[in-house]
Amino acid sequence: MKIIATLILPALLLTARAAEPLPSWNDTANRKAIVAFVEKTTKEGSPDFVSKPERIAVFDNDGTLWSEQPMYFQVFFLIDRVKALAPEHPEWKEKEPFASLLKGDIKGVMASGEKGLMQLLAATHTGMTTEEFAKTVTDWIATAKNPKTGKLLTDMAFQPMVELLGYLRENGYKTFIVSGGGIEFMRPWTEKVYGIPPEQVIGSSIQLKYEVRDGKPVLVKLPELNLNDDKEGKPVGIERHIGRRPVFAAGNSDGDFQMLEWTTSGSGPRLGLIIHHTDAEREFAYDRESHFGKLDKALDEAPKRGWLVVDMKSDWKVVFPPDK
Amino acid sequence: MKIIATLILPALLLTARAAEPLPSWNDTANRKAIVAFVEKTTKEGSPDFVSKPERIAVFDNDGTLWSEQPMYFQVFFLIDRVKALAPEHPEWKEKEPFASLLKGDIKGVMASGEKGLMQLLAATHTGMTTEEFAKTVTDWIATAKNPKTGKLLTDMAFQPMVELLGYLRENGYKTFIVSGGGIEFMRPWTEKVYGIPPEQVIGSSIQLKYEVRDGKPVLVKLPELNLNDDKEGKPVGIERHIGRRPVFAAGNSDGDFQMLEWTTSGSGPRLGLIIHHTDAEREFAYDRESHFGKLDKALDEAPKRGWLVVDMKSDWKVVFPPDK
Repeated sequence: MKIIATLILPALLLTARAAEPLPSWNDTANRKAIVAFVEKTTKEGSPDFVSKPERIAVFDNDGTLWSEQPMYFQVFFLIDRVKALAPEHPEWKEKEPFASLLKGDIKGVMASGEKGLMQLLAATHTGMTTEEFAKTVTDWIATAKNPKTGKLLTDMAFQPMVELLGYLRENGYKTFIVSGGGIEFMRPWTEKVYGIPPEQVIGSSIQLKYEVRDGKPVLVKLPELNLNDDKEGKPVGIERHIGRRPVFAAGNSDGDFQMLEWTTSGSGPRLGLIIHHTDAEREFAYDRESHFGKLDKALDEAPKRGWLVVDMKSDWKVVFPPDK
Repeated sequence: MKIIATLILPALLLTARAAEPLPSWNDTANRKAIVAFVEKTTKEGSPDFVSKPERIAVFDNDGTLWSEQPMYFQVFFLIDRVKALAPEHPEWKEKEPFASLLKGDIKGVMASGEKGLMQLLAATHTGMTTEEFAKTVTDWIATAKNPKTGKLLTDMAFQPMVELLGYLRENGYKTFIVSGGGIEFMRPWTEKVYGIPPEQVIGSSIQLKYEVRDGKPVLVKLPELNLNDDKEGKPVGIERHIGRRPVFAAGNSDGDFQMLEWTTSGSGPRLGLIIHHTDAEREFAYDRESHFGKLDKALDEAPKRGWLVVDMKSDWKVVFPPDK
C-alpha cells in the first residue's frame, strides 16, 4: 500500500488542485466562462483547440492587474521624483508646473496641460541611463505606499488576477502585459509581482540612445516618444512585440477597447474580459466619470461583442492578497 | 533485465546525446569554448552560474543564421515584388529606380541612392495590412531560391547554428533574433526554420496604423521608419523588446559590433561570437570588402575583447543541412 500511496496520492492531489483553479473567484458565471474557455482551447481534439505557440494572453496593467486610484501609481512615482530632485533644481521653485507640484497644488499642475506633463516626464524619466532608471524604480517601489489604503503598491495587485495569470500559464498560455504605463517603470518588478518577465512587458516607451561613456556602453533615455501604448497604440504594441494576435485579452477601461477589439475579432476562439470596479468598500468604485481608467464605450459594447464584464464586488472573494 | 533495459537505456541514450552537442561542429577550440561556456553558466553552484530567466541569447540573422550572398535575401524578395506588382504600375517603366530594376540594371538602381531604396521599400513593404504582407512572404519563401547555389533560401540556414540554437534552448537559454532585416519579413518562417517564435524576433520595423475597415480591424504598414535595427540600433532594439542585457551574442559583421559590445560588457560571464565567412567552396568567402555583411572593425576588435571568431571552413563539418 505504501507504493500506492507514494504514486497515487500526489496524482490525486494534482487532480484536486487542477479541479479548483482561481480560488479567489466566486463560482459565478464569469469564473465558469473563463475556466470553460481555457479548457476548450487547451484540450487536444477539441474543435476550439489552440496550439501552444498561439496561446497568447495580454493584460492591461493599471486597473486590471493592480489598482489605479486615486491616480495612476506611476504619477506617485513622478511626484516623488520631482521632490527628490528638487534640491538640484532651485529654479523649479519659480517654474511651472514644478512650482505647483512642489506646493502640492494639483490643480496648478493640471493647468499646465499636456505640455506641463511632458516637462514633468522629461525631468523624471529621461536623461539618465536605463540601468540608473531601473535602480531608481526598484528602490522606490520597495517602500511606496498608496495614500488611500496605506498598502504597499505591490500589495495592491489583484489576487484573483494573479491567480488568473498563473492558471493561464499552467495551461500553456504565455502572459504579456500591454499597458499605457511606462515599459521601464514596470519591468523592474513585474516578474516578482505577476510572474511576467521583462521581455513580456509592453508599455509606452521613449527613444533610447546607445553611447559609450568612458569605455562603458550605456543606453540613455531621451525626451522623445517612441510608442504611446494606449487605445490604437495597444494593437500596434502587440504587433511590434509579439507578432501574433492574442487569443485572450483583459482590460478595464476605454484605453483597452482596441486591444480587446483586435483580440476578439480574430478567427477561432477568443476571450475578452473587462474588469469593472464596483467595490467601493474593498477597493474603489468608478467607471464612466473617472479621470483614471474611464470605462464608458467599452462597457456599452461589451455585451454586443461577447466580452465578459467582471463585477469585482460579486465575482471576487478577495481583492488583494492577505496582509502579511 | 528487461526492466533495467527499459529504465536505463533511455537514460544512457540521453547521456550520450547530452555528451555530444553540436554534431556539425568540428571539435575545435571554438566548439570547446562554446560548450564550456554553456556548462559553466548552467551548472548549479558554478561561480559563473546564470539564473534561468537571465539566460538570453541573441543572434543576428543575415550571415549569422543563414547566408547573405550574393545579396541580402530580403533584396531578392523586394525585386520579385516589384516585378509582381509592375503590371499594376505601368508608370514604373519610365520611373526610377523601378525602370532600372525591371530591366535588371542593378547599377541604375544603385545610382538612385538611399532615396531610391526607400521608394522601392515603400512600394513593396508598405500600404498593405500586416496579415496581407505575412501571407505574401509565406508564399514567396516557400519556393524562393538562391541564384548562386540553386537551394531554397530556407535550406541555406547554417546547420551548425541551428544546432547551437537548439543546444542553448536545451540548456534553458531563450533565443532571440536581432537583425537589421525587416521584422515582418522574418516572423512568418523563423519558427519553422530556427525554432524561434515571432515574439522572439527583433528587426528593423516601420510604423503601423490601427484602423477598422468595414467593421474589421487591421494594422496597416506605413512608409515611416520605426527602428533601424542595425549598429547602435541593435542594443536599442534589445532593450525595447527584451529589457535585459543578453549573456550570449552572435553576429558576423560590423553591423553587429554594438550588440556584441553591449552584451559582453555586462558583468559576469558573457560570450561574443563572430561568424567569419572563410569557405568559398561550401558557402562564400568575404569580410572587409563586402557590400553585404562587411566585417572589418569587429574582426580587429575580436581578440582584444575575447570574442570567438568562428572560421566556417575549419570549425564546421557541414554548412547547410543535407539535401532532402
